[in-house]
Amino acid sequence: MNAAHIQLDRQGRLLHFLTVEGLSRRHLIEILDTAESLHGVAERRVKKLPTLHGKTVVNLFFEVSTRTRTTFELAAKRLSADVLTLNIATSSAVKGESLLDTLRNIEAMQCDMFVVRHQQSGAAEFIARHVKPHIAVLNAGDGRHAHPTQALLDVFTIRRHKPDFPSLQVAIVGDILHSRVARSLIHALNILGVADLRVVAPRTLLPARVETLGVRVCHELNQGLRDADVVVMLRLQRERMEGALLPSEQEFFQRYGLTEERLASAKSDAIVMHPGPINRGVEIDSRVADGPRSVILEQVTNGIAVRMAIMSITLGNHARPVGEGS
Amino acid sequence: MNAAHIQLDRQGRLLHFLTVEGLSRRHLIEILDTAESLHGVAERRVKKLPTLHGKTVVNLFFEVSTRTRTTFELAAKRLSADVLTLNIATSSAVKGESLLDTLRNIEAMQCDMFVVRHQQSGAAEFIARHVKPHIAVLNAGDGRHAHPTQALLDVFTIRRHKPDFPSLQVAIVGDILHSRVARSLIHALNILGVADLRVVAPRTLLPARVETLGVRVCHELNQGLRDADVVVMLRLQRERMEGALLPSEQEFFQRYGLTEERLASAKSDAIVMHPGPINRGVEIDSRVADGPRSVILEQVTNGIAVRMAIMSITLGNHARPVGEGS
Amino acid sequence: MNAAHIQLDRQGRLLHFLTVEGLSRRHLIEILDTAESLHGVAERRVKKLPTLHGKTVVNLFFEVSTRTRTTFELAAKRLSADVLTLNIATSSAVKGESLLDTLRNIEAMQCDMFVVRHQQSGAAEFIARHVKPHIAVLNAGDGRHAHPTQALLDVFTIRRHKPDFPSLQVAIVGDILHSRVARSLIHALNILGVADLRVVAPRTLLPARVETLGVRVCHELNQGLRDADVVVMLRLQRERMEGALLPSEQEFFQRYGLTEERLASAKSDAIVMHPGPINRGVEIDSRVADGPRSVILEQVTNGIAVRMAIMSITLGNHARPVGEGS
Repeated sequence: MNAAHIQLDRQGRLLHFLTVEGLSRRHLIEILDTAESLHGVAERRVKKLPTLHGKTVVNLFFEVSTRTRTTFELAAKRLSADVLTLNIATSSAVKGESLLDTLRNIEAMQCDMFVVRHQQSGAAEFIARHVKPHIAVLNAGDGRHAHPTQALLDVFTIRRHKPDFPSLQVAIVGDILHSRVARSLIHALNILGVADLRVVAPRTLLPARVETLGVRVCHELNQGLRDADVVVMLRLQRERMEGALLPSEQEFFQRYGLTEERLASAKSDAIVMHPGPINRGVEIDSRVADGPRSVILEQVTNGIAVRMAIMSITLGNHARPVGEGS
Repeated sequence: MNAAHIQLDRQGRLLHFLTVEGLSRRHLIEILDTAESLHGVAERRVKKLPTLHGKTVVNLFFEVSTRTRTTFELAAKRLSADVLTLNIATSSAVKGESLLDTLRNIEAMQCDMFVVRHQQSGAAEFIARHVKPHIAVLNAGDGRHAHPTQALLDVFTIRRHKPDFPSLQVAIVGDILHSRVARSLIHALNILGVADLRVVAPRTLLPARVETLGVRVCHELNQGLRDADVVVMLRLQRERMEGALLPSEQEFFQRYGLTEERLASAKSDAIVMHPGPINRGVEIDSRVADGPRSVILEQVTNGIAVRMAIMSITLGNHARPVGEGS
Repeated sequence: MNAAHIQLDRQGRLLHFLTVEGLSRRHLIEILDTAESLHGVAERRVKKLPTLHGKTVVNLFFEVSTRTRTTFELAAKRLSADVLTLNIATSSAVKGESLLDTLRNIEAMQCDMFVVRHQQSGAAEFIARHVKPHIAVLNAGDGRHAHPTQALLDVFTIRRHKPDFPSLQVAIVGDILHSRVARSLIHALNILGVADLRVVAPRTLLPARVETLGVRVCHELNQGLRDADVVVMLRLQRERMEGALLPSEQEFFQRYGLTEERLASAKSDAIVMHPGPINRGVEIDSRVADGPRSVILEQVTNGIAVRMAIMSITLGNHARPVGEGS
C-alpha cells in the first residue's frame, strides 16, 4: 500500500490529498469542477463560504514557505475554518519529542485537517498513515517528491485557457530534477490524456530514466517549444542544488531562459506558466513573465480556488459515517 | 492579600484564574461541570459556540510555549473570540518599555482577557493586580509557582475515569521540585478530598518541607505506586535543572521510570497521566505511555474543554455590573 | 502626481490613506466623525461590526512593529475582516524576488487592503501606485515621511477634549527631525486651522526650514509651552539617530523633558499626549505620563476607532463601481 492508495477510501473517494499518482481522471475532474464553482467566490463582495465553519485546519510547516502557507491559510479562512499555523522547525513543541508525539498531541486537540510541508519526501504520507481517521491530510510539498495542489492549480489554469487536454502539446522547461512541481504536473497531465508532453532541460537537471514518467525529452529549447500550446517554466532551485550541476545562471539563461524570440517557436496563442517565485533573467525574461501570454498571476489566484476545492472535497468525504474518535 | 484572594470578587466568584490555592471545592466543581458540558462541543460537526463572540483574548507569552499557546488559542477560537498572540520576549513593544507600560497599552486596546505565560513566579498575579477591572487574567504557567489550568484538566481527566475523589489513591512521580504542574495539582486534589496523595521522588527533586502541602513522601517507586488508582508522571525538566541534581537520565529511569512491571504495583485499573511533552525512556517507558492505561492524549483533548470552561466562567463573572473603564 | 493626489479618486474621495498632505478639512472631519461613531463599539458587549466581513486585510510589514501591527489587526478583526500578517523582512517570499513581484503575488490572492509599514519614505505610495485598482493601501509608517493614522488618532483625541481647533495653541516637543508622527500631525493641525502651532526642539533635532511647514519654532521649553492647550511629546528615536545629535539623554531631559513644574507654563487644563512607547525620564517624567492631564492611553484606545474608520471609508469608496480586476 502506498500514498496513491492511502489517500482513497474503499469507494475510491479522496480522504487525503498526498500525490497525483494513482488518481483517476474522475478525481481530477471533480477537483477542477469544484474549483471552477469556487472561483467566483473571490469576486463576490463577501468572499466567504460557510463550508468549513467550526472546523480547525492546522498548517504543519516543517519547512518555511510564506507563499504556500498564505494560500492555504486564505483558502481555509474563505471556507470559514479556524486556522492554526505551527512552524515546527522553530517550535518548542518538538524539543525532545518525536514527530509522532507532536502529531498525536495536535490531533488530540480535535483538529480536522493537517496541511503538511516537509523537506523530506514521503512526510505527508507518513502523517496520513498515522493520524486518526477523522483527519484529512494535504501535502503542501514534500522534498523532491510531490506538490500536488500546485499541479492541480496548474491544470486548472490550463483548462481555463485550453480545455481540450487530449489535443494539447505541453513543454515543461528547466530544473526537472529538483522540482516536485514538475513531477506532480507530469502525472496530472498524463492522467488527463495530454497528447504530447515534453521536458526540456540539460542532462544534469533531469532525473534518471525520466522517460518512464511518460514524457519526451529535449535538450534544446527551440525544439522543445515547437508548436507548444502550454509552456511551463520551472524555478531554478538554487537552494536545492548540490555541487556544480550547471556552469552559471547566465549560461543557463542563454540556453534555457525563455525570451520572446524563443517563444515564437510555440503556437501563437501559447500560454506561459511558472509556479513562482520567478528568477527574472535566469529562467525567464521579464518581457515574457509580464507579457500578454503569461498566466503566472492567474495561477496564484487559481491556487486559492483549487485549495478550497481540495479542502471541501476531502473533509466532505470524511464527514460521511466513519468511526470518529472521541 | 495574595493571589488566592485577588482572583475572587466579593461574592467569591472567579474573576481571574491564577492559582488553585485558596479556591473552594465549589469553584473546582463549577469548572469541572462546565468543562463537561463543553466537552461534547468538540465532537460536533460545528465545533464552535458564540459565548465569546466580539471578545478579544490576548496571549501574552513572555516564555515561548507552542503547546500551551495552541490550546488556549483553540479554546478561545472555539468560543468565537478574536485572538491576538504577543510573544513579548521577542516583541519590539518591549524596547525601552516597562512591563507595566506594555500592559497599559494592550489594555487600552480594549481587550477582555490576558492569558499570561511567564518564567517568573507571581507574574500573572502581578498583572491581575494592575489591569483594569474589566479584564480577566489567566495564568498559563508562571515560573515554578503554578500551572492551574493544567491541574484542572488533570483533575477533569481523573474525574471522567474515577469520579469518587475521597476514595482515591494518587501518586505523583518525578521532578516535583521544578514542577509548577505538581504544585497546582497537589492543591487541587487536596481541595477535592483525595484520600491518599503521595509524591515519589529522590530527595534532590523534592521541595523543602513538601509534607506541609498535604502529601506523603516516598523515595521508592514500587512503594509509591502501591494500590494507586492514578499515577501522574512528571516531565524531567532538564532545561530547568541547575547543576547536578541527579546522576544521569539512565539512572533516573532505572529508579523512577514507569515501566509495565512497576505499574503492576498499582491497582489493575489504574490510569497513567503525564502533562507532556513526554521524555520516552527517561521518566516513562513507551509501552506504558502508549498502553491501554495511559490517558495522556485524553488530557490534551480535555485541556481544550477545561480552558473553554475557565474562559467562559471568568469572563461571565466580569460581565455582571462592575465599573467598566471607558 | 504625488501621494496627495494618488490617494483620491476623481470625485475627491479617499481610496488610499498615504499622507495627510493634500487632504481637505472635509476629509479629516469625515474620518473623525466616523471614528466617533465607531468609538462606542469597543464598549459594547460584542465589539464587532460586519462592515468588512469577507474582506481580506494584509499587514505588509517590512519593518517590525508589534504595537502598530496589533492595532491595525484589532481594527480589522473588529470590522470582521480576515487578517493576514506578512513580515516581509523575514519572509522567504522575498528570496530572489522583487518587491513588485511580491506585491503582484499577494494581490493575485484577491486581498482587499494592504497595511504597509516600511523603513523607506514613499514605500506606501509606491505600492498604491502599483496595486490593482480594487485594493486600498494604508500607510502605517514610512521612513521619516509620514504616519498619517497616528496623526488622525492624535487629532481625534484632541477633538474629544478640545473641539474648537481654531482657538487652540498646540506645542509639539522633541525630536521633530526623525519623527514621521510630527510631520503628519503638523499637516493635520494646519488643515484643521489650529491658531498657534509650535515646535520645540534643539536645532539639531529640527528639519531644515521647518517653518515652511506652518509652525513657529522655539528652542526653549518653558517658552514653547506657554499657554498651550495641547502638549505633544515625541519619542526620542534613539534607534534612528546617526552620530551625536545630542549630548546625552540626561541633558536632553534637563532641557526638554516634560515635568510637572514645566507643564505649569501651559494652560491649567492642558492635555499631554505622546505617540508611545514612552521613554520615562528621557522625554517625559513619569508623574506627567501617569498624571491627570495625560491622555496617552486614550490615544491608544482611540487608535483602534480611527483605524476602523479609515478602513471603512477607503474600502467603502472602492466598493462603488470601479473596474474590478478578475
